[in-house]
Amino acid sequence: MTIRYPNGNAYQTPAGKTGPRFPSTYTNYGKRGMSLEEALNESNTYYESRGQAVVHKKPTPIQIVKVDYPKRSAAVIKEAYFSTASTTDYNGVYRSHYLDFDAKETRNQGSFPLKNFHEHQIDHMRACVAQGGICFAIIKFVTHEETYLYPAKYLFQFWDAQAAGGRKSVPYTEIQTNGILIPAALQIPVPYLKAVDVLIESLS
Amino acid sequence: MTIRYPNGNAYQTPAGKTGPRFPSTYTNYGKRGMSLEEALNESNTYYESRGQAVVHKKPTPIQIVKVDYPKRSAAVIKEAYFSTASTTDYNGVYRSHYLDFDAKETRNQGSFPLKNFHEHQIDHMRACVAQGGICFAIIKFVTHEETYLYPAKYLFQFWDAQAAGGRKSVPYTEIQTNGILIPAALQIPVPYLKAVDVLIESLS
Repeated sequence: MTIRYPNGNAYQTPAGKTGPRFPSTYTNYGKRGMSLEEALNESNTYYESRGQAVVHKKPTPIQIVKVDYPKRSAAVIKEAYFSTASTTDYNGVYRSHYLDFDAKETRNQGSFPLKNFHEHQIDHMRACVAQGGICFAIIKFVTHEETYLYPAKYLFQFWDAQAAGGRKSVPYTEIQTNGILIPAALQIPVPYLKAVDVLIESLS
Repeated sequence: MTIRYPNGNAYQTPAGKTGPRFPSTYTNYGKRGMSLEEALNESNTYYESRGQAVVHKKPTPIQIVKVDYPKRSAAVIKEAYFSTASTTDYNGVYRSHYLDFDAKETRNQGSFPLKNFHEHQIDHMRACVAQGGICFAIIKFVTHEETYLYPAKYLFQFWDAQAAGGRKSVPYTEIQTNGILIPAALQIPVPYLKAVDVLIESLS
């Protein structure tokens, strides 16, 4: 059926738009190949555009060795190496709280391997928690198609247990229990702020 | 005079150390060529080591075009370009507050040119202030050998006035009046947290 304006002209979907404001495939973003990072970046852009939070992914740290400065054009980096981040990937401000987190995905079904984290990232989150920051991991179980906010305090417990010779992963059931499930939403690929609200409530 | 241990052996300054824990030249860091960025990074390392704050400079954003993956060695970036940061350079957490700022130095004596800032940096600070973040600029007048914390709300006023056809710089006297002087300190190149305390007090 053709939808018509009151003047009788047929409604045309504007160029570049496909009907709904956000494609409904966003709820299945994993299926169309959007990485967790891309999904989070889109979520952050959405949140910032609505004035709900200001959260950014930090640029990848690069050690630059050689730069050319050609005449009349932009400087070209000719030799550089990826260096290890000394912090987590994401931070920002939400409801006057400092947020700091990392995002990881795993294809494992039964557990989340701790080797996804580096010692310095855990140390960084500990330092942030000590300053009153809200720290967590966003963990996506690709096979289960579930994404959880997992509070840093539980992550620290498993990290420390591992250092003391314990298991090298966090069981999926533990993350189901102490993590906060981030439900699918129509407009936001990873609507994690609702889970952050739950975490903040639990701290006060 | 040679200092000796109780067993008679002479005390030797450990390799790589030069006596006091922080060289006293730190108070004159500008003179020995330390940039404001280096001075802030050292200050942040000091603050974090004391558990006083967690603040980091974000890595420079780079757009990577070509990467080589040689066998048995690290990936080499062969072509990349500097891209424009979408945020300020520094952020972190202090006393449960989200801090967000940029650091600029000028050799001007009478004013601080607003062209040192980009529109998107100002927009970013506005968004952070709206979320309850503590935002400011750290401005160093190289010739005066003075560094100020200049609260974002005053910066916004001059920025908006410029957009409306007003002056393109902030007078030095204005920064003396509404900025907070960061005094020299023996151990910390830029001891800005004291000025942040003053700013936080003024907001509550």
